[in-house]
Amino acid sequence: MQEFPDWLHSRAATVPERVALIAQDRQWTFSELDTEADRAARRLASLGVREGDHVATILKAGFTSAVLPHATLRLGATLVPLNTRLSEKELEWQIDDIDPRIVIRDEASLAAASEMDVDLRRAHPSTSVLAVIYTSGTTGHPKGAMLTVGNFWWSAIGSALNLGTRPRDRWLACLPLFHVGGLSILIRSAIYGITAVVHDGFDADAVNVAIENNEVSIVSVVAVMLQRMLDARPDSPYPPSLRCVLVGGGPVPRSLLDRCASLLIPVVQTYGLTETCSQIATISPEDAIRKLGSSGKPLYPNELRISHDAEILVRGPVVMKGYAGRPAETSSTIVDGWLHTGDAGSIDDDGFLFVLDRRDDLIITGGENVYPAEVEAALSSHPSVAEAGVVGARDAEWGQRVVAFVKLKDSTHADTPSLTAHCSLQLGSFKIPREFRFTEEPLPRTAAGKLRRSALREMLEGTNAGPE
Amino acid sequence: MQEFPDWLHSRAATVPERVALIAQDRQWTFSELDTEADRAARRLASLGVREGDHVATILKAGFTSAVLPHATLRLGATLVPLNTRLSEKELEWQIDDIDPRIVIRDEASLAAASEMDVDLRRAHPSTSVLAVIYTSGTTGHPKGAMLTVGNFWWSAIGSALNLGTRPRDRWLACLPLFHVGGLSILIRSAIYGITAVVHDGFDADAVNVAIENNEVSIVSVVAVMLQRMLDARPDSPYPPSLRCVLVGGGPVPRSLLDRCASLLIPVVQTYGLTETCSQIATISPEDAIRKLGSSGKPLYPNELRISHDAEILVRGPVVMKGYAGRPAETSSTIVDGWLHTGDAGSIDDDGFLFVLDRRDDLIITGGENVYPAEVEAALSSHPSVAEAGVVGARDAEWGQRVVAFVKLKDSTHADTPSLTAHCSLQLGSFKIPREFRFTEEPLPRTAAGKLRRSALREMLEGTNAGPE
Repeated sequence: MQEFPDWLHSRAATVPERVALIAQDRQWTFSELDTEADRAARRLASLGVREGDHVATILKAGFTSAVLPHATLRLGATLVPLNTRLSEKELEWQIDDIDPRIVIRDEASLAAASEMDVDLRRAHPSTSVLAVIYTSGTTGHPKGAMLTVGNFWWSAIGSALNLGTRPRDRWLACLPLFHVGGLSILIRSAIYGITAVVHDGFDADAVNVAIENNEVSIVSVVAVMLQRMLDARPDSPYPPSLRCVLVGGGPVPRSLLDRCASLLIPVVQTYGLTETCSQIATISPEDAIRKLGSSGKPLYPNELRISHDAEILVRGPVVMKGYAGRPAETSSTIVDGWLHTGDAGSIDDDGFLFVLDRRDDLIITGGENVYPAEVEAALSSHPSVAEAGVVGARDAEWGQRVVAFVKLKDSTHADTPSLTAHCSLQLGSFKIPREFRFTEEPLPRTAAGKLRRSALREMLEGTNAGPE
Repeated sequence: MQEFPDWLHSRAATVPERVALIAQDRQWTFSELDTEADRAARRLASLGVREGDHVATILKAGFTSAVLPHATLRLGATLVPLNTRLSEKELEWQIDDIDPRIVIRDEASLAAASEMDVDLRRAHPSTSVLAVIYTSGTTGHPKGAMLTVGNFWWSAIGSALNLGTRPRDRWLACLPLFHVGGLSILIRSAIYGITAVVHDGFDADAVNVAIENNEVSIVSVVAVMLQRMLDARPDSPYPPSLRCVLVGGGPVPRSLLDRCASLLIPVVQTYGLTETCSQIATISPEDAIRKLGSSGKPLYPNELRISHDAEILVRGPVVMKGYAGRPAETSSTIVDGWLHTGDAGSIDDDGFLFVLDRRDDLIITGGENVYPAEVEAALSSHPSVAEAGVVGARDAEWGQRVVAFVKLKDSTHADTPSLTAHCSLQLGSFKIPREFRFTEEPLPRTAAGKLRRSALREMLEGTNAGPE
C-alpha cells in the first residue's frame, strides 16, 4: 500500500451513525466528526496552512485537539501538538525548532476562522508525516519525532492483531493528546471504527466513572495512574465491559500487578516509545498473568532484539521516519533500520521482553549495574510507601551510590532502618539505597505520568553541589 | 510493506500454546502447526518442489490440506488446491493447464516422504502467489485465479476492521478448502492468531454441534447450508459464543434472513469472489438487520462501484494478480485496476450494495430485466418450496421467458396455479415464471453450495432442443 484512503472519511462512509468521539460531555458520530474535520481543514486553509506546513498546537485534550489530526492530514500538513505544561521559554524553543505556519492555542479563534474552499485529500501517502511529537527529553534538548501515516497504520494493526478489536470497543484517552500514547488512540479509533473517549487530563474518579458507567472497554494508562484509580475505589473488580487496561510508560511495580491480578483487572503491560508510534511490544492476554512484569513480544510485523550491551533495539514499520531537522541524531538513533531505544532490557527463554530501565538512568556502583526501577518496585511494595524514585549520586569510593526519594502514604511511618530492612529481603546488598530522602511533595513526573529521574538527579546536585 | 514475516511462524513465536487448528478430532497449537508446516515443506522439497513451482492437491479438508498452504509458502511455491468433486477428465484439464511439479492426492504418501534439509522462507513478498484457485466456471473453461500473499493479508485485515477480531475466536471452515471461502479462513486464522476449525464437508448436525458445544464463534456458509442448519435443530437461538454467521456465495432468500432475525442469529451477509480473495463487501454488524438483504459496503481499503450497465466493479489490494497463463482474459477482466465481476448489482442511497445476480444469468424478457435470484427468493418464501432455481428459456415471442425449477419439501404439495398466485403477490407480472418444472432431485450446485444455473439451462436445452 502506497496510499491509505482517509480513515475517518472511510468510517463516515461505512458506519456513519456509530459514535466516533466522546469529549467534553458531548458525542460525535463518524459522519459528524468527518464533517467537522473538513470544516477544521478549511479553516486552517483560510489561516494560510498549505501542504507540507507544520501546524503547532498548545491545546487541552478535547474536541478541537481530537479533530485537528484529521484536519491537518487532509491538507497534507503535519500536526505538531506541543506539551501544554511547558514553560513559555520551552515552548518558544520548540516552536523555533519546528518553524510552524501557525500556532493554535485558542480553540475559539480557530472556530471563528472562515472556511476556505480548498480540495481536501481523501487518501494519504504512507510516508506522509502525520505528526511531529517532541520527546520528553530526559536529557539534552527535546527532539521532534516524525511519525508517518504508515507508522500509525501499522501501530493500529499490530495492536489489533494482539489485543483484538471489537466494533463496540470504547478506548479511553486520559493520557495527553500531545503525547503519542494519547494521539495514537485517536488515530487507532478511526482505523478500527470505534469510539475514542477523551478526558482533559487524568482524574482517577472520572476514569473510574467512565469504566463503571460508560462502557469504556480499553484504557491506556501509566502505572501511577492505575495506582490512583485503584486507590480511589473499593477493592472490587471492574465490570466485564472493561476488557483491557493497557499499562505503559515505564516499569510497573510488582505489587500493583499482584493487586490487579487479585482483583481480576485485565492488566496488559506494554512497552513503547514516541519513536515507535506507541506500543512496540505488548503482552498477549493469556500471558498477562503468567508472565507478570513482562511487556510481552513485539507486535506484528516488528522485530525486537537486545544489543550486546543490554539496549533494546527495534525494527519495523512503526519506527519513526526520523527526528525533524536532525539528520545526524536520526542516523545515530536508527542504524541499519534498527532503532536504538536507549532503554535497557532482557528477553527470557520464552521470548518475553522485560524492560529494565532507561539506560541513561542505569546506576553503576562498584562495577555493579543497578536498575532504578527494580529498587523502586521493592520500595513500593512497602505498605507505607506511596511513591519511590531512585537515582545514582556521585560517590568518591563507589563511582555512584544508590539514593532513594520516598514519599510516604498519609498517616503512615517508615524510616531509613525499616526501609533498608525491607529492601534487604528483596534486593542484593549493592542495590539497597545508601541514602533515603523523604519528601512530602509528589515526585516529579512528565505530563504522561512518567517519573522524571533527571529532575531527581538535579535535586541531588542542588544539595550536593561540588566539583565534577 | 514489501514483505510479510511468515504468519504462522510469527504466531508460533508470540502465542505458541494457543490452539491453531482443530480437525479430524485432533487439535494443534500454533507451535505444533508451525513445526508440521516445516516438516511438510521439507517433504515437498524431497519430492522435488522448488521455488516458483505449482503444487496441485486433490485432498479432502483436514490436517494435510490445512498445513500445505503454509508449507508451499515456505518453499516459495504456489498451492493449487483442486476441486475433489471434479471428474477425472476435468481434473486432467486443470492439471494440464497449470502444469504442477507434483499432484498430491494421497496424504499417506506425503507423510511417508523423507524430509530434505532446505532453507525455509520466514518472510514472503507481498506479490508472491500463495495459491491459484480455479473458479467454478459457470460458463466456458475454468480459469486459475492467482492470489498473492498481499491479497490474503488485505482480505484478513479488511474483514477484521469490519467484524472485529478476538483472540479467542474460533472460525469454522465447513466450506471446501479448495475454494477461496475455505482457504481464506486458514490464512486469516494464522494472521489473527485464532483457531480454525476444519470440517471435512458440510454436515448440518456437525456444524450445529460445533457451534453449540465447541465454542465456534464465526462460521462461513452459503444460504443453503444455513437453511439446512436451521432445519436440523429446534427454532431457538444459538449460544452467545456464536457472534457471526457470515453468509456469502450468492443472494440469500429474504425468508431465511427473516427467520434468522427472529431467532436472533447474528447473520452477516457478504459478497465476494475467488478473484477478490473472498469478501469484498460485508455488512457491518449494526446494519445487518436494518439493511437486510444487503451485502454492505466495501472492506477497507477497497473500492466498489456499479458500471453504467449494472455490473459490479471492484478495485483494491484484494484483487487477484490475474488468471494464471491467461494474459488476455486477465486484461479483459481487470481494466484500469477495476475488476469486472460479471455480477449485477446496485448501491442504494445510503451506499449499501445489493447483489442482484450473475450478469450471465440475467433474463431479458420482452425488454424487461429479470434477476433470477429475486424470483427464486419469492418462490422460496412459499411454505412448500424446498429449493427453487430460475433461468431463461429461448422464446420466439419474448426473446426469453422465465422458467422455474422447483423442488418441493417432503409431504407437501404445490402446483403451477398455486405458485403462480404466490409469486403474483410479490413480483411484477413479467417476472412471474411462465413454466414450472417440478423435480424430486436436489438442484445442481457447486461444491460450495452455489446454485448452478448453467446446469439448469442445459437441462432446459436438453428437453427443448431446437435450432438457435
